[in-house]
Amino acid sequence: MAVNEYPFPKMHPVKGVKLTAVCAGIKKINRRDVVLFELAEGSNVAGVFTKNAFCAAPVTVCREHLAAASIRYLIINSGNANACTGEQGLLDAKATCAAIAELKGIDAAQILPFSTGVIGEPLPLAKITAVIPEALASVNENGWDDAGAGIMTTDTRAKGFSEQFEYQGKVITVNGIAKGAGMIKPNMATMLGYIATDAKIAQPLLQELAREAADKSFNRITIDGDTSTNDSCILIASGQVDLPEVKASAGELYEKLRATIIAAYVYLAKSIVSDGEGATKFVTVAVSGGANRDECLAVGYAVAHSPLIKTALFASDPNWGRIVAAIGYAGVDSLDANKVRVHLNDVLIVENGGRAATYTEAQGQAVMNGAEIGININLGRGNFVETIWTTDLSYEYVRINADYRS
Amino acid sequence: MAVNEYPFPKMHPVKGVKLTAVCAGIKKINRRDVVLFELAEGSNVAGVFTKNAFCAAPVTVCREHLAAASIRYLIINSGNANACTGEQGLLDAKATCAAIAELKGIDAAQILPFSTGVIGEPLPLAKITAVIPEALASVNENGWDDAGAGIMTTDTRAKGFSEQFEYQGKVITVNGIAKGAGMIKPNMATMLGYIATDAKIAQPLLQELAREAADKSFNRITIDGDTSTNDSCILIASGQVDLPEVKASAGELYEKLRATIIAAYVYLAKSIVSDGEGATKFVTVAVSGGANRDECLAVGYAVAHSPLIKTALFASDPNWGRIVAAIGYAGVDSLDANKVRVHLNDVLIVENGGRAATYTEAQGQAVMNGAEIGININLGRGNFVETIWTTDLSYEYVRINADYRS
Repeated sequence: MAVNEYPFPKMHPVKGVKLTAVCAGIKKINRRDVVLFELAEGSNVAGVFTKNAFCAAPVTVCREHLAAASIRYLIINSGNANACTGEQGLLDAKATCAAIAELKGIDAAQILPFSTGVIGEPLPLAKITAVIPEALASVNENGWDDAGAGIMTTDTRAKGFSEQFEYQGKVITVNGIAKGAGMIKPNMATMLGYIATDAKIAQPLLQELAREAADKSFNRITIDGDTSTNDSCILIASGQVDLPEVKASAGELYEKLRATIIAAYVYLAKSIVSDGEGATKFVTVAVSGGANRDECLAVGYAVAHSPLIKTALFASDPNWGRIVAAIGYAGVDSLDANKVRVHLNDVLIVENGGRAATYTEAQGQAVMNGAEIGININLGRGNFVETIWTTDLSYEYVRINADYRS
Repeated sequence: MAVNEYPFPKMHPVKGVKLTAVCAGIKKINRRDVVLFELAEGSNVAGVFTKNAFCAAPVTVCREHLAAASIRYLIINSGNANACTGEQGLLDAKATCAAIAELKGIDAAQILPFSTGVIGEPLPLAKITAVIPEALASVNENGWDDAGAGIMTTDTRAKGFSEQFEYQGKVITVNGIAKGAGMIKPNMATMLGYIATDAKIAQPLLQELAREAADKSFNRITIDGDTSTNDSCILIASGQVDLPEVKASAGELYEKLRATIIAAYVYLAKSIVSDGEGATKFVTVAVSGGANRDECLAVGYAVAHSPLIKTALFASDPNWGRIVAAIGYAGVDSLDANKVRVHLNDVLIVENGGRAATYTEAQGQAVMNGAEIGININLGRGNFVETIWTTDLSYEYVRINADYRS
């Protein structure tokens, strides 16, 4: 069951970005499993990738190509992750790029390849290259819906974002699509995200924005703590809107664009959490009062990853003892338990090293009965704040992940 | 379902250690829920305690008393953890000690208090002090079985160890009892361990042994990564065997005693893992070839804590992609994926950055069908080795932890 629906919106076109999804029959016949982006000349592209030491072949190739050339195409296949495929995997990812480069007379480094699906199986290269001509012929500015569906694997629904704003009479668009059912299946559910705007942004600033937005979104969601071999998130600026280049010093335009890009990332990340398989609760863990960012994150992840807390959330049980225990073992140096305050939504449950005097089980129960739950922790030792989104842990989670492959 | 039974053995007496369990009616009527140890004068006691910042009141008091005095009594209650109980909790833990001290005419600091059970409820002090005279009157050298049962909470069976060896015609005994159903319920299932020998060991060496043995056992088991507010492990040397003091330079006697004490800790720790609620597999994660201890542990815990791997284990699914992904995200600096080798028991599944050429799914399936599974990871970058024990993640785990309290 998916909670807290984040609907796939009506997608506006993004000037300079054409896309499509075609059927290559990688895993299923008649499924649009290859997505192609075509970017206008002069587009800038930035990326944030998995830090997994077993990163997939396409991730390695993406990093190389982003550093080497101006990107014109992105090709994404679902159904096969091309991960843990050794040297052959690298050759296959590069061959995919070469096939496009040859047909378009460009350099292979101008293409970024992405794969998502089963780990450890050789990429069915011939199936993919066979549909590249069809994909190149069919790219169009209204292909966002097809692309959003085409990158899905175990997702129960496509994830999309589209917003426009005006600046000096010109309309700027920010679109995004993503896939991932909460990283709960690295074999099949890599997190992929593609966010595009038609504003003009130089590559270094774009990379800064891509990093900042990912840190505030995809890097703050967790279903079970596992990180995929293929996670990738790309930010595209086509520069096709007739406005000057957006610089960090540009004031209003920059701030508006930055806010919209971050909003896109956050919306897509939350869409992924809310589609976590087996999820019945959408949980926001907000840690404030930290002496630094790292300790806020350590506490947030300790709470968000605790199977004990997650099963209690599934049971709608306001089991504050488990929350307190997780805060306590998060490894925060010299944490003074007496200064920690914990709220469930706005209900104070813990202070002075124990249950708040004002707290009643009925108050906690009322919060836990909802589908959206906020666990708000103040460490009482500084001004840093971090927020993490996660889900509960249900029978369904075990069933899906135990039954998968059987 | 408990796996891999570690039977409770016939317990030999340990000279100088008397114990008993009596009924205080803390949570249930007619349950022996208060355990008392009486130690001969001259006994030495060492302890290792939870690092949880929300450590329970008795843990704080134990630390104080161990530093201040020679210990003569240990009192343990189940049914209430006296954790997150603030200032009153400390007063209650101290009052328990004072009640014994007054009756025996000793200092309150000579008593160590322990509690396990529900977090956040005030300790029912009067019920405990009411049964202290009965407990003092009933301690005896054959009370190990009752004590082993008395400290249980959600455990499905008592955990015990008892071994003897001879040295220069004298018999030395090492006994131990422990409780904890895999730390999967910090509210109810704190890990407690009491290991006792009648050998004579000075306190500093005893503390060293207690630390080393805990590091090789209780600190290497994980069911779900959660650490309780009350975890405590105590090592007692009564010194009542007619042999000279055991020193680290003593050669054979020291080595034999050390090995037996470590064996006791390891047996008890494995007993706890095998009693993990919902566990259907006993899993040993052995990480070798590390450049240091920390990176072996980081990889071991990443694998042992991964819900994706644990659900695959439950499903008897040789899902090597999930294992590889967890190794990859464990955060080992500059890990060369091509040098990592992974075996399931003795079946090579991963090498050269991908699935081993010799590997067949049938081989992996054969390993996974067993109740005891070894995940053996060689990082290929050094000589350090660490071993962690854990279980799978089953429907039953979710049921128990979701239903508890409801």
